[in-house]
Amino acid sequence: MLEPSIDLEAVRRHFENDHFAISSGIRPVELRRGHATAALQIEDRHLNSVGIVQGGAIFTLADLAFAMASNSHGRVAVAINTNLSFLKATQSGALYAEASEVSRTRRISTCSVRVTDDAGALVALFQGTAYIKDQAFPAS
Amino acid sequence: MLEPSIDLEAVRRHFENDHFAISSGIRPVELRRGHATAALQIEDRHLNSVGIVQGGAIFTLADLAFAMASNSHGRVAVAINTNLSFLKATQSGALYAEASEVSRTRRISTCSVRVTDDAGALVALFQGTAYIKDQAFPAS
Amino acid sequence: MLEPSIDLEAVRRHFENDHFAISSGIRPVELRRGHATAALQIEDRHLNSVGIVQGGAIFTLADLAFAMASNSHGRVAVAINTNLSFLKATQSGALYAEASEVSRTRRISTCSVRVTDDAGALVALFQGTAYIKDQAFPAS
Amino acid sequence: MLEPSIDLEAVRRHFENDHFAISSGIRPVELRRGHATAALQIEDRHLNSVGIVQGGAIFTLADLAFAMASNSHGRVAVAINTNLSFLKATQSGALYAEASEVSRTRRISTCSVRVTDDAGALVALFQGTAYIKDQAFPAS
Repeated sequence: MLEPSIDLEAVRRHFENDHFAISSGIRPVELRRGHATAALQIEDRHLNSVGIVQGGAIFTLADLAFAMASNSHGRVAVAINTNLSFLKATQSGALYAEASEVSRTRRISTCSVRVTDDAGALVALFQGTAYIKDQAFPAS
Repeated sequence: MLEPSIDLEAVRRHFENDHFAISSGIRPVELRRGHATAALQIEDRHLNSVGIVQGGAIFTLADLAFAMASNSHGRVAVAINTNLSFLKATQSGALYAEASEVSRTRRISTCSVRVTDDAGALVALFQGTAYIKDQAFPAS
Repeated sequence: MLEPSIDLEAVRRHFENDHFAISSGIRPVELRRGHATAALQIEDRHLNSVGIVQGGAIFTLADLAFAMASNSHGRVAVAINTNLSFLKATQSGALYAEASEVSRTRRISTCSVRVTDDAGALVALFQGTAYIKDQAFPAS
Repeated sequence: MLEPSIDLEAVRRHFENDHFAISSGIRPVELRRGHATAALQIEDRHLNSVGIVQGGAIFTLADLAFAMASNSHGRVAVAINTNLSFLKATQSGALYAEASEVSRTRRISTCSVRVTDDAGALVALFQGTAYIKDQAFPAS
């Protein structure tokens, strides 16, 4: 299963069709093979009932970067397990997720994602496992 | 640290002020001490770029049930770690999260959350760890 | 990929050749399709530096039950991710791990494992994800 | 809660009394504030029934480094959750675990642990969460 040559910009644009991420104000930023970044500008709608960014918003941000990185080799990869540690509460500014694929076998992609704030402080740490299918990505 | 007597309906209503969950179409359904349910009616905006419910929507649903269960004793509990296994793709209908607090010590609440679809099939399994503060919840 | 008919007692016995588990005093107890139990009689060598059962002993116990359950269908399944919450310290008596396969697709087995003590109290909760290979198990 | 000045060599030696780790052939190597390493020379007893290093041995190695790092500030820290991804099978040589505390609040320590083999290849990735008690460590 050779890796196809792929158009990374097409892959990145593909994620602009992720309805949930996009409607949540999260956007794909950059994509290289095995590396991806996504960003979120914090608004009131991202807060929970006590005024800090809700865990689901942080997860969705990290998960988008994870999906981009694990799908950056031209094969469909689907998330099977994710682990997320919440390290620091945030209320305003922007959040950034940076995903690195730490391991890739024929069938399994494992990524580590760091979520940071405007000041560069670590807000959350995410570990994701994806299963790699035979299907090409994005579908042509 | 005795557990205060609490108004569970007030706790449940408090989560109706969770901006991110509510604006994502997720609603708190039922709350008892150590048990909670939340629900999501699937719409187009919950799908990802390949037409299935996005992981972040499933996480946010499970996380809301987890937050409700871990905060159901009248003390503020904040999520510190979550683990989520994605078991089955869904595209339409409704999703339900049912959280059970499997362990509660003075400082740590551990919850297990099952996410199921309309047919009762298991869609995701979530394990959450929260740190319990001294603060009363909801704040009076 | 039909499931082969298998000799569950042969599978269970196979795990008696798990050097690390066996040399750690852990033994396979019972096996049915998708369900397995393992046990550990606590000795001094299982304790950590402060006199309670070490996390690694609890993990190894839970992991053996997980391996048995995920391999109980006649195909090799290898662990790719595990999550373990430690709920209660123990010092003496026995520990039991009971694994249930909560989901099984063609390639992924997901198991939940409860670790309990002599009194039936929950000591740890484990969630495991395994990748299913084409290879028969045990090899004939 | 000021951090006490501590004798890191005394902390490291303390872990030489971790019965399970030591009897499993795992040894504490180096300790600095928030950083620790541990090592394991692979022997037959560390293998599982198919001849590769058993998951429990890898966990115990990673967990010891995590315990050392989270206890390196002079306060008792107890593991509450761990996540472990298995990335590469190994059969011989040595394994090394290197733990870094990525976040430390008054009550929660979060560590990331990389397990590598003799060739420097990543074998496993571990994320651990510990609860910090008021008690001094090691007890005097």
